[in-house]
Amino acid sequence: MKIESVDFFYLSMPVIRDIGDGSQDALLVRVIADNGLVGWGECEAAPLASIAAWCCPMSHSACKPVSHSVLGRRIESPADIRALTGEVRRNSFDLLQADHTLSGVDMALWDLLGKRRGEPAWKLLGWERAFAKIAYASQLFGDTPVETGDKARKVRAAGFRAAKFGWGPFGTHLAADEAHVRAARAGLGPDVALLVDAGTIWGEDVEEAAKRLPVLQECGALWLEEPFVSGALHAYHELGRRMRAPLRTAGGEGAHEPFMARNLVDFGGLGYVQIDAGRIGGLTSAYEVARHAEASGVTYVNHTFTTPLALSASLQPFAGMESSRLCEYPTESSALARNLTVEKIEPTPDGEIPIPDRPGLGMDIRLETVREYLVPVELRVAGKLIHQTPTI
Amino acid sequence: MKIESVDFFYLSMPVIRDIGDGSQDALLVRVIADNGLVGWGECEAAPLASIAAWCCPMSHSACKPVSHSVLGRRIESPADIRALTGEVRRNSFDLLQADHTLSGVDMALWDLLGKRRGEPAWKLLGWERAFAKIAYASQLFGDTPVETGDKARKVRAAGFRAAKFGWGPFGTHLAADEAHVRAARAGLGPDVALLVDAGTIWGEDVEEAAKRLPVLQECGALWLEEPFVSGALHAYHELGRRMRAPLRTAGGEGAHEPFMARNLVDFGGLGYVQIDAGRIGGLTSAYEVARHAEASGVTYVNHTFTTPLALSASLQPFAGMESSRLCEYPTESSALARNLTVEKIEPTPDGEIPIPDRPGLGMDIRLETVREYLVPVELRVAGKLIHQTPTI
Repeated sequence: MKIESVDFFYLSMPVIRDIGDGSQDALLVRVIADNGLVGWGECEAAPLASIAAWCCPMSHSACKPVSHSVLGRRIESPADIRALTGEVRRNSFDLLQADHTLSGVDMALWDLLGKRRGEPAWKLLGWERAFAKIAYASQLFGDTPVETGDKARKVRAAGFRAAKFGWGPFGTHLAADEAHVRAARAGLGPDVALLVDAGTIWGEDVEEAAKRLPVLQECGALWLEEPFVSGALHAYHELGRRMRAPLRTAGGEGAHEPFMARNLVDFGGLGYVQIDAGRIGGLTSAYEVARHAEASGVTYVNHTFTTPLALSASLQPFAGMESSRLCEYPTESSALARNLTVEKIEPTPDGEIPIPDRPGLGMDIRLETVREYLVPVELRVAGKLIHQTPTI
Repeated sequence: MKIESVDFFYLSMPVIRDIGDGSQDALLVRVIADNGLVGWGECEAAPLASIAAWCCPMSHSACKPVSHSVLGRRIESPADIRALTGEVRRNSFDLLQADHTLSGVDMALWDLLGKRRGEPAWKLLGWERAFAKIAYASQLFGDTPVETGDKARKVRAAGFRAAKFGWGPFGTHLAADEAHVRAARAGLGPDVALLVDAGTIWGEDVEEAAKRLPVLQECGALWLEEPFVSGALHAYHELGRRMRAPLRTAGGEGAHEPFMARNLVDFGGLGYVQIDAGRIGGLTSAYEVARHAEASGVTYVNHTFTTPLALSASLQPFAGMESSRLCEYPTESSALARNLTVEKIEPTPDGEIPIPDRPGLGMDIRLETVREYLVPVELRVAGKLIHQTPTI
C-alpha cells in the first residue's frame, strides 16, 4: 500500500496546568493508505513544533521536513517501515524535532500494517508470543508525605502490585524526600513494589543523589529513576555502582533515538531502560532498544503517561520479553487521554496488563473525543498556507 | 537589563537546492533589552520548527516554549546567561527542538552583554586572551576526483594552510573515495593540511569506515570527521583505536547539548571535538565543551558552514585555547550568508583568522540583506495568531 496522507491532530485540555502531567495535550497522527486503511499513532511531544517538523520547508539536503521521506512511500512489510526510519533520520538529520514527529508516524504505520495483515504489531516486530506485564501505577508524589501515603493506600486498594511516585516536591530537601519515600512504603504495605522517579532533579550530581540511597534501600525500592539527565553517563554509572540490590538505576525516557538509550545501558550501567515509543522514533526504534536490552541482560520498561493508544504502542516493542515484567500504567491521565480510545487497557484483578492482540495497535479512536479537544493549527510561510488542521 | 523582546527572522535563498549546503537559509535572532541595546544570534537549525519551539503553547511543566524562560529576565552578568541555559533546559526538557532555538537566543545574549560591557564575548566567557586560528577552507567534495583536485588547487592558491572536503559523493564506493582523497592531496600539495568529512555515511559500521584508513594515512589526513552518527560511541572508539597518528577521529557537530559532546570525548575517544554553537545551545554550552576538551587533552574545533555572525559566535568559545589552532572557515556560503553582516572575517595572508575583539560578537547586521531574503512566518493556534514575523 502507498501512504496517501498523514494528518496531525493537536488535542488539548481547555486549561494546561504547570504540573508534570504530560497527558494534558496530545498529538495524534493518522495515516491513510491508498487502499483506504487507516493507522493511528501519537507523538509524546510538543504538538506545534512537531507539526512544524512535518511540513517545514527544506533547509538543505540533510534538513528536510519529515513529510519528504514519508508521503507516497510504499509500505508492504516490516522491512519497509524500518527502512523509512533510516530514511527520515538521514533526510532530517539536522532537524532536531524530527525524531518526535517520526515517533507518531512510525507508530501509525505499524498499526496500519497490522490491520492489513490481521496481526498485532508485536508479532510483526518479531516476537513469537506476548507476555502479560505487571502494571505499576504511575503517579506524581503528593504535595505532602501524608498525601503521598494516601495515594499509596489507594493504589494498593486498587489491586496494583507495583507503584511509582515521581516529580512533585521530590529531590530538593533530603528530610522531606525521606518522609515521602517512607510514607509511600507505609501506604503500599510490604508487598507492593515501590519505584521512585527523581525527574532528573540532580543534573549530574552523584553525591546529592547518593544521599537518598539509604532510605530507598531501607524501603526496598526497586529503582531510582532519572536521578540525572540522560546524557550524564558517568554519573549514572557511578550511582549504579553504589546501589545495593535490588535497588538499581532506571532511565532513558528522554532518548529520542536508539543510541541514547543504548549508551545509557552500555556506558551508564542502567538496571532498567525506560523507553517512550512516542519520543524515540516509534516502535521501530523502541524495538531496537528492547533487543539491545535483552542482549545486555537489562530490563526494558515502557514509559507512558498519556493515552491508551500510547500505552498499547509502548507495550508492543517488549511484548515478548518474558523477564521484563513491569509496565508503566498511567493512573492520573487527563479526560482527553482517558477518552481517546474506544477500547480501554485495564489491569486484571491480579494487577496484570495483557498485551493487546487485535490487529495493529488494537485501539479504535473515538472521533468525538478528537473533535471535542481539537486545537486547529495554521502555518503560513512566505504567505503560503503550508499546514492546516483537517476537519474530522 | 531586562529582555524586552526576542524576534526571529527566517531568511532563505529564493531556491533551496537538495545539497549539503547549510547556508541556503538562516534563522536570525534579535534580542532587545529595556535599555535599547540589541544583540544578534543565529540558530543553525530548521527555521520554522525552531520558531515553533519559541512560541508554542505549554504542554506541561517540563514542556514549555523557550520564550517562557527568556522574556522579561534580567541579564547583568555571565552568570545570568548561564543560569538561563539551565532554566530553558529544565522548562523545555521534553521539547526537543528547544536546544536549537536556545542556541540563537544564547548567542544574542552574549552579544548583548558584550556590547553593554564593551568587551568581546570570549572575554566574558572566561578567556584571558584570544589566539588567532588557522583557517581551514571548508567545502564539499567535487562530483568527480578531477573536480575535487581543482577545488584543492584553488584553496592552496588562495593561501589556506588547511582544507576540508566532505559530503558529496564520498563514502559509498571505496575506489572512488580513494581517488577523491588522492586528488585532494595532489591539489593541495604536500604542505596544506588535509581533513576529510564523511557526513555520518557509515552509520556505525566500523569495518566500512576502516577501509578508508589506508588512503587517509597515505595522504597524511589529520582527521576523519563523522564516520558515524553522533551516538555511536563504541564505533568511534574502535575506529580511533585503529588509526595511526596523526590521523584521528573528529565529530560532535550534531551535539545539541554538552553531554553528547562530552560523551564523544570520554567514551568515543575523539581526537577533535567539533561544536556548532548554533546547535549545542549557544556560547554557554559550547564553552562548557571547550573547557571539557581542554581538561581531556582533546582538540576543540568550531563547526560553521554559514554566516560571518555564526563564525564569530563559533570562535568565541575556544578563543583562548592556544593548542586548538584550526578553525572551520566556510568558503562556499550562499549570497545571503556572505552578505548578512557589515564586517567580514577574512583570513590573513598567512591563512590565519584573528578572533574578533569588538564588543559582543563584533558583527553588525546588514538590515537590507535581512529584508531581501526575509521569509515571513505566521503561526495560528486555536484561531489565535501566536507568531508573526515583525517588520524590519
